[in-house]
Amino acid sequence: MGLRQDCDTIVTKAIAQVRPDAAVARALSGRCFGSGKLVLVSVGKAAWSMADAAWNSLERKPDAGIVITKYDHSQGPIGNLEVREAGHPVPDENTFSATSRALELTSDLTKQDTVLFLLSGGGSALFEKPLIPGEELQDVTRQLLACGADIVEMNILRKRLSAVKGGRFAQHCAPARVFAVVLSDIIGDPLDMIASGPAYPDGSTCEEARAVVEKYALKLTPQALALLAQETPKQLDNVETHITGSVRELCQAAAQACRELNYEPVILTDSLTCQAREAGSFLASIARYHQDASRSLAFLAGGETVVRLTGKGKGGRNQEIALSAAQGIDGLQETAVFSFGSDGTDGPTDAAGGFVTGQTQAVLAQEGLSIFDVLQDNDAYRALACCGGLIVTGATGTNVNDVAVVLIRR
Amino acid sequence: MGLRQDCDTIVTKAIAQVRPDAAVARALSGRCFGSGKLVLVSVGKAAWSMADAAWNSLERKPDAGIVITKYDHSQGPIGNLEVREAGHPVPDENTFSATSRALELTSDLTKQDTVLFLLSGGGSALFEKPLIPGEELQDVTRQLLACGADIVEMNILRKRLSAVKGGRFAQHCAPARVFAVVLSDIIGDPLDMIASGPAYPDGSTCEEARAVVEKYALKLTPQALALLAQETPKQLDNVETHITGSVRELCQAAAQACRELNYEPVILTDSLTCQAREAGSFLASIARYHQDASRSLAFLAGGETVVRLTGKGKGGRNQEIALSAAQGIDGLQETAVFSFGSDGTDGPTDAAGGFVTGQTQAVLAQEGLSIFDVLQDNDAYRALACCGGLIVTGATGTNVNDVAVVLIRR
Repeated sequence: MGLRQDCDTIVTKAIAQVRPDAAVARALSGRCFGSGKLVLVSVGKAAWSMADAAWNSLERKPDAGIVITKYDHSQGPIGNLEVREAGHPVPDENTFSATSRALELTSDLTKQDTVLFLLSGGGSALFEKPLIPGEELQDVTRQLLACGADIVEMNILRKRLSAVKGGRFAQHCAPARVFAVVLSDIIGDPLDMIASGPAYPDGSTCEEARAVVEKYALKLTPQALALLAQETPKQLDNVETHITGSVRELCQAAAQACRELNYEPVILTDSLTCQAREAGSFLASIARYHQDASRSLAFLAGGETVVRLTGKGKGGRNQEIALSAAQGIDGLQETAVFSFGSDGTDGPTDAAGGFVTGQTQAVLAQEGLSIFDVLQDNDAYRALACCGGLIVTGATGTNVNDVAVVLIRR
Repeated sequence: MGLRQDCDTIVTKAIAQVRPDAAVARALSGRCFGSGKLVLVSVGKAAWSMADAAWNSLERKPDAGIVITKYDHSQGPIGNLEVREAGHPVPDENTFSATSRALELTSDLTKQDTVLFLLSGGGSALFEKPLIPGEELQDVTRQLLACGADIVEMNILRKRLSAVKGGRFAQHCAPARVFAVVLSDIIGDPLDMIASGPAYPDGSTCEEARAVVEKYALKLTPQALALLAQETPKQLDNVETHITGSVRELCQAAAQACRELNYEPVILTDSLTCQAREAGSFLASIARYHQDASRSLAFLAGGETVVRLTGKGKGGRNQEIALSAAQGIDGLQETAVFSFGSDGTDGPTDAAGGFVTGQTQAVLAQEGLSIFDVLQDNDAYRALACCGGLIVTGATGTNVNDVAVVLIRR
């Protein structure tokens, strides 16, 4: 069971490194924020853990601060910080009032001051202050949805109707310095999309906003039209952004864990987006090619694959990657493929992912299970449960996508 | 156009190394076959080129020999060799008489003698002498097809009804030594499957043959039943096999060409079998991850992917790999993905494959073409033609599968 133990060690160590607390502590390690005022603003579904970790790791505690997270996501008071809960995924009055409070706390700052801005997924809904009445914003959103506008077009308008999106929060904090720590849950870390980029320069233009209005013949008030003509910040000189707890860090942490177990790790990618079954087949073909290796090897591919639905069984993308790979590595010695989601929940299951070896297909055949049929039915969970191939971690409190690993032990 | 020139150089050099003539010459380089008799038997669609190359590269010419290839595939006389043409994919009387002649030429040999056996794809049909009447063999085949037997089950029976398949040709040549040069066109080089393994020990058993007969309640003559009870050779001490011109050599030759152009090559696999579009997506994600590389890199993946049919356009698996990758590498600088088939014919097109860069998607968008839509229609040929992305080599006279390459120039 050596390969399985190695798998469990790698999973545990990799997830530990991308938990919000570890990720924030790493990002803040050795940082000093000068002698000016230090204001902490933490926003998103992981806002409480991020703020708590920051509070604990900062030698000099913030002078003031606010935490805005989803209902039932706070876990008690943190120092002198104000802890607020608000609506998600639909913003509500608590969203608007908490965001107003954050803007107050970061008003009238000087060049010597610092805003420590902690951002995680869910921030688009949890951090918002519209520049037009709430009902009017809802009406604009309704019109855009009705005419089939895409997410890019919607964001071009919404950023201009918001006091904080599209770089405007950082603009508001100026001349104070903004040190942003971003927990990325989107492949490729698109900073303009995570929480709609409150501290990131906006690439869209007023001309594009006008084009969207014309294209869909939107009905807008003169106030809204005037806002659409106001440019979002194209450059933000007062912001330093540190992405942490991303799938890249997950891959790197997994690679480091492999190295500690004497595998030579090779990270292939951290932005895998293809179909899960096909990724499993590709990874298995890599395992086959390297059977003659003279030392132990590990190949890692991070990302977020997609499941092609062809059946009605129970499973998830990581379990499909593993089970599909089991066909391709059938009969190989000391070779395993496993894949897991960092949130501990793969698809609608209680498993984080799946683990298979060169012997898995034979074991399943003895149970009368054909991998091809199981995959056709999207029923990987049942098959993996049957051969001890489920990876179970429980909920991890983080969500930075997945990583798949090929292990070849020599 | 530097990346495109590099692509063309790599394609040309890689194919040159796996042409039957180059592959045979490489396999025979420096070989001596003792002082006994030397008989050449060359079988398959590439039999003529292989025999011609052998004749030219051998210092001591064969004492006798025969070439058995498909109709219209011979290109004239070769020394003292008998050149025969026969039916493919369905064996005919010429198959049986030519195979009988090959058995005659290799009869009564001694331990000092050598049979130089050159084997290429198509050998199953072109090299056959059934031990039962032809019509009876056809009837058995019909029964097997009608009851849904798979290719493995069919081969278990057919090897036992043949004088040459399943290792029996090598057994017939004993005690002479058989030096087999195999041009592999099947992923993984399964020597028992290439031309039904005339010079390779057979893994199947009489018990398995009996089980197939019972499973499908086949109706057989007593003569056929007696043959099924005769074991095929399980060990062949007189055979030395050299696989050449395989997809592994194609990958190695492409990697060497990359190295000569100052790319550091990494061969990921030589047995890729997943869906073409998904392979393109996976390769693109590898390209994205390595953008920060400080030196030029090349990632290679050999194999034979499959096209998922969702439309009615014109294309092939290599063209789909490239076009799919174009989405994933969009916007990247000095980055290309290309894929080509060694036979020069990708799908039902006159192109060998496709080439794309980080700029391809933008060029196609200007022409009003969406890659997503083109792929849905399986119409890669048209889109690649439109942006100069077709790789055209003409027919190459070899067929050792495909290789896809990611180039990152720094």
